[in-house]
Amino acid sequence: SHSINLAVIPGDGIGQEVVAQGLKVLAAALPQDVKLETEEYDFGARRYHATGETLTDADLDSLKKHDAILLGAIGDPSVPSGVLERGFLLKLRFAFDHHVNLRPSKLLPGVATPLAGQPAIDFVVVREGTEGPYTGNGGTIRKGTEHEVATEVSVNTAFGVERVVRDAFARAQARPRKKLTLVHKNNVLTFAGHLWTDVFNRVAGEFPEVTTDYLHVDAATIFLVTDPARFDVIVTDNLFGDIITDLAAAVSGGIGVAASGNINPSRDFPSMFEPVHGSAPDIAGQGKADPTATVLSVALLLRHLGHEAEAARVEAAVEADLTERGAAVRTTDEIGDALAARVAS
Amino acid sequence: SHSINLAVIPGDGIGQEVVAQGLKVLAAALPQDVKLETEEYDFGARRYHATGETLTDADLDSLKKHDAILLGAIGDPSVPSGVLERGFLLKLRFAFDHHVNLRPSKLLPGVATPLAGQPAIDFVVVREGTEGPYTGNGGTIRKGTEHEVATEVSVNTAFGVERVVRDAFARAQARPRKKLTLVHKNNVLTFAGHLWTDVFNRVAGEFPEVTTDYLHVDAATIFLVTDPARFDVIVTDNLFGDIITDLAAAVSGGIGVAASGNINPSRDFPSMFEPVHGSAPDIAGQGKADPTATVLSVALLLRHLGHEAEAARVEAAVEADLTERGAAVRTTDEIGDALAARVAS
Ligand SMILES: CC(C)[C@H](C(=O)O)[C@@H](O)C(=O)O
Ligand SMILES: CC(C)[C@H](C(=O)O)[C@@H](O)C(=O)O
Repeated sequence: SHSINLAVIPGDGIGQEVVAQGLKVLAAALPQDVKLETEEYDFGARRYHATGETLTDADLDSLKKHDAILLGAIGDPSVPSGVLERGFLLKLRFAFDHHVNLRPSKLLPGVATPLAGQPAIDFVVVREGTEGPYTGNGGTIRKGTEHEVATEVSVNTAFGVERVVRDAFARAQARPRKKLTLVHKNNVLTFAGHLWTDVFNRVAGEFPEVTTDYLHVDAATIFLVTDPARFDVIVTDNLFGDIITDLAAAVSGGIGVAASGNINPSRDFPSMFEPVHGSAPDIAGQGKADPTATVLSVALLLRHLGHEAEAARVEAAVEADLTERGAAVRTTDEIGDALAARVAS
Repeated sequence: SHSINLAVIPGDGIGQEVVAQGLKVLAAALPQDVKLETEEYDFGARRYHATGETLTDADLDSLKKHDAILLGAIGDPSVPSGVLERGFLLKLRFAFDHHVNLRPSKLLPGVATPLAGQPAIDFVVVREGTEGPYTGNGGTIRKGTEHEVATEVSVNTAFGVERVVRDAFARAQARPRKKLTLVHKNNVLTFAGHLWTDVFNRVAGEFPEVTTDYLHVDAATIFLVTDPARFDVIVTDNLFGDIITDLAAAVSGGIGVAASGNINPSRDFPSMFEPVHGSAPDIAGQGKADPTATVLSVALLLRHLGHEAEAARVEAAVEADLTERGAAVRTTDEIGDALAARVAS
């Protein structure tokens, strides 16, 4: 018997509502002998407006003590663009070295997709989470004048690329199709592109059973809509991963069902699990938000903490619910209740 | 009466075949009193293998004398990734300051799309062509070691952003819907993002009739598959433009019909027109390539040179052909002949 010590960050907009359902399902999924302890944090727009703070060193120290973090959504139109993204979301990913950003896509029978012909979609994107154009490197000179120059520096290291590429190979190796696609733009971004390609080819030698493939990011977006069934595992850089995972979510059931894990496989720091969608302030507080993406993020959290059977049970409950969902409109709470009931049964 | 002095670069793979059709249609479209003079250049993989050259200063001097350039496709698997892209395609865009990269998307009735429900798609992307992450800035240290660091620097200037943003506003102003969407990632790439956003908002003041909108690039990919009808004109950075125009092509009939213009509106240098697709070596020489994208690029070329009526005639011929195309398989030549016949009639 042991306990899970979970940090909960509901955040802004619909975050509160969807996180409540995630916790409901988590409680239903855990074995009796596992004690769930949660501590709630008030990060996001409210705290920023009240105190000017987004994420302090003391916050990081406090968060660090938990086994994992469940996040709803952070972001509000009342806060200037970039403040909460750079000051909270990215700060946390960097501080806790969340270098494996895991984003599975699976289109279930009966789930709406904008694509014709309901293709077979079942792949996972392993997005690098701590490098690339996300480092905040760069700057501005002569701001606001006609001579302004603004730069953004994408930073890529052999260390950073290799660990995420190896993680992706291991995930591909563990899946039935054993196929890994590197997505980059190595014909234009030749410095970073050569590093990614060299490391990818080198690590491939350690995984002879994995079939490998390379696509430029622009071509990858084409295949994501014309032939998504070709993908099994994709590994890619932070920015390309941001872009293609939103597209992947759109084609495989929408961002209402897209889960993600910001993972530090070393367990030196807690990993964080969150829906891919944002805070959707336009529908907040109305019980309209779909908590499915948060519940699927809870499944990733369970798997990360070693509760594989429970993770699989949550995923099976979601799959059954989505397949049978039909056209009936349910509230956030009703979907959460239905999922928790399935998991408990 | 005057003449058009055209540089023709068939290039690699299917380039030769599709350019031949483009020229056929161009000849059919031009008024009797306009003399068409063409000069063919042998750039691409063959010349690179024979001489090691991709594009010399002498080549640039020679190309510069023409009124416009028609390009088929450049690229071959026998050449290391990046050599022809950076050494020819991008070198030319930079040398001739092709800062307006124009890529229209229109889904015609009867044309296949991977999207369900045949949405109404009719928008144009204005992609910046000479800045951003495409400048070749950056580098590598400790190459090939476990301590390698590779950087890519996105360079953005007020001068460069403003001219392309103003061009996009003017294009939006000239269209019935008068709507312009800025696509960037200003919540993460805050230095470049603020420059783009500030310039966009400032120039908007000069175009009070144009409705404006902003989307993060990841969200834009979602809307391109769930609600492409929302777009009228999009303006965006070089790399984001590369990515979303391939996706735009995929949803609006495929890269077989996606045209582009690399435009220098000042006319100090010739602009270049090319299909968005690549050299497709797997189908080269078999008469299987669809020349439609090249023919639509010829329409952009005609419009750029002031032949608006002829451009519209070429576009109307393509629209009629696509709408009536049906399932019959035609060769590259047959499609070119059919389009030329429609244009001439
Ligand atoms: C909100 C933003 C910082 C974030 C990102 O770009 O990573 C989001 O788009 C995501 O994909 O998690
Ligand atoms: C081939 C490559 C250099 C080019 C680009 O990235 O611009 C192509 O993808 C395009 O979109 O024209």
